[in-house]
Amino acid sequence: MTSRTVFFVSDRTGITVETLGRALLAQFEGVDFRPVNLPFVDDISDAEEAAVLINRAAETDRAPPIVFSTLVDRKLRGILQGCDCVFLGFFEHYLGRLSETLGVKPLEAGGRSHLSDTSEYLQRIEAINYTLDHDDGVSAENLGKADIILTGVSRSGKTPTCLYLSMQFGIHAANFPLTEDDLELPQLPASVKPYKEKLFGLKIDPRRIRNIREQRRPNSRYASLAQCQYEIRQAERLFKKSHIPYIDSTSKSIEEIATTILQQTGLTRRFY
Amino acid sequence: MTSRTVFFVSDRTGITVETLGRALLAQFEGVDFRPVNLPFVDDISDAEEAAVLINRAAETDRAPPIVFSTLVDRKLRGILQGCDCVFLGFFEHYLGRLSETLGVKPLEAGGRSHLSDTSEYLQRIEAINYTLDHDDGVSAENLGKADIILTGVSRSGKTPTCLYLSMQFGIHAANFPLTEDDLELPQLPASVKPYKEKLFGLKIDPRRIRNIREQRRPNSRYASLAQCQYEIRQAERLFKKSHIPYIDSTSKSIEEIATTILQQTGLTRRFY
Repeated sequence: MTSRTVFFVSDRTGITVETLGRALLAQFEGVDFRPVNLPFVDDISDAEEAAVLINRAAETDRAPPIVFSTLVDRKLRGILQGCDCVFLGFFEHYLGRLSETLGVKPLEAGGRSHLSDTSEYLQRIEAINYTLDHDDGVSAENLGKADIILTGVSRSGKTPTCLYLSMQFGIHAANFPLTEDDLELPQLPASVKPYKEKLFGLKIDPRRIRNIREQRRPNSRYASLAQCQYEIRQAERLFKKSHIPYIDSTSKSIEEIATTILQQTGLTRRFY
Repeated sequence: MTSRTVFFVSDRTGITVETLGRALLAQFEGVDFRPVNLPFVDDISDAEEAAVLINRAAETDRAPPIVFSTLVDRKLRGILQGCDCVFLGFFEHYLGRLSETLGVKPLEAGGRSHLSDTSEYLQRIEAINYTLDHDDGVSAENLGKADIILTGVSRSGKTPTCLYLSMQFGIHAANFPLTEDDLELPQLPASVKPYKEKLFGLKIDPRRIRNIREQRRPNSRYASLAQCQYEIRQAERLFKKSHIPYIDSTSKSIEEIATTILQQTGLTRRFY
């Protein structure tokens, strides 16, 4: 198997350049990629250090490393482009066409991310705290302040999805677990009825939930397949009867569940 | 001010295409961009629906919309490229050069994300649960299982950073808050001493922390500037004396704090 060193270079966290770079690399089978993350490359000396690492990898591999970059600063890019590498910049390639269609010149300055903006930081922290305070329905009296209330049986993905919605989008996401008692009721539990319009259900394959529960409480009735099947069936019956929108989260990542919920509800994000 | 509709089109969540697209748009001042997210465009009929929206925006705006795309499938891309738009694809542009340097043909198939892989989903859930169970030091006896223990005064950013580390990277991140009593000690609290090597400190501007605390408990001694200044000073003294690495989180986003910690500690991610 051939192998190749891959650098993800960014003047910030490098999360975006790595995601996109890995999606591209996934298109090529049979190559052993060795990833190296170089975040916060935001001055000449950082770029020169990066250049040393890239050239060293070229010598060791006897093949030019692949360098994915989202560097904005032209000088810093220039230093890396001068290395023995295949340089793939996600940024500069598009500036020209954008500038042309918009009739505006690009700034070409690094600039801080929107995420370090103070008011947005505070909104984010507030949303995360809201979600933590309303995890597992601990303070049902404050559900009125929720933007959305995820509901479903234990371990159906409510908590991680709520955390993602609050962290990524500043959404006040609360969590209302359906207990065994709730599932025997002919209708929604009284405490959550006033907020019916905010409810969104999660359904999940009973075998998947059994695996997750098994990690939590091995060999328990709680984790048995029969119990999981019963609860999921009852929850779906409740969603249908009460006209609560719901999705099957089984084969979805947390990001996919969150994005699908945004798409289906039209919920407004506090920031992107 | 000129205005322009911008589409972020993806066969998955669209989070990456939007991040990158917005970073590019931030280079152009004086334009009123109207963003539209089109996630999960993964079949012909979705692409045709997207095309209708794009062409309609072109008519309304009397200017071609900007379409950022991470679509992998050539047919779906073709449908959008046929619209009245400026099509900027983050994917296809790089496949050719990668294919050439690697000597391998690209698959050009959508493929599922690594994130919907079951074992990774379970690892992620487990890491998030670990972090939630160890938030605010509630079960100090289990700190031994932590990959990292963030420490600092109340509201210095420990909890959101721990959640991000667990959600994004599967890291078991615990949280050890320094209380007023702890801060008067000449050394680390006894309960955390055995795990000294795992500690990482967060420092924050006292005025910033005062704002955050003020939201929590308005006009309290806890939120007073004098108290915040005292606690931060004592915490930093403790970090220095005990040789605990620490960073100033004041002007950083949660992503930046997390990435800096990974970079400084060399902590291994369970997935990217």
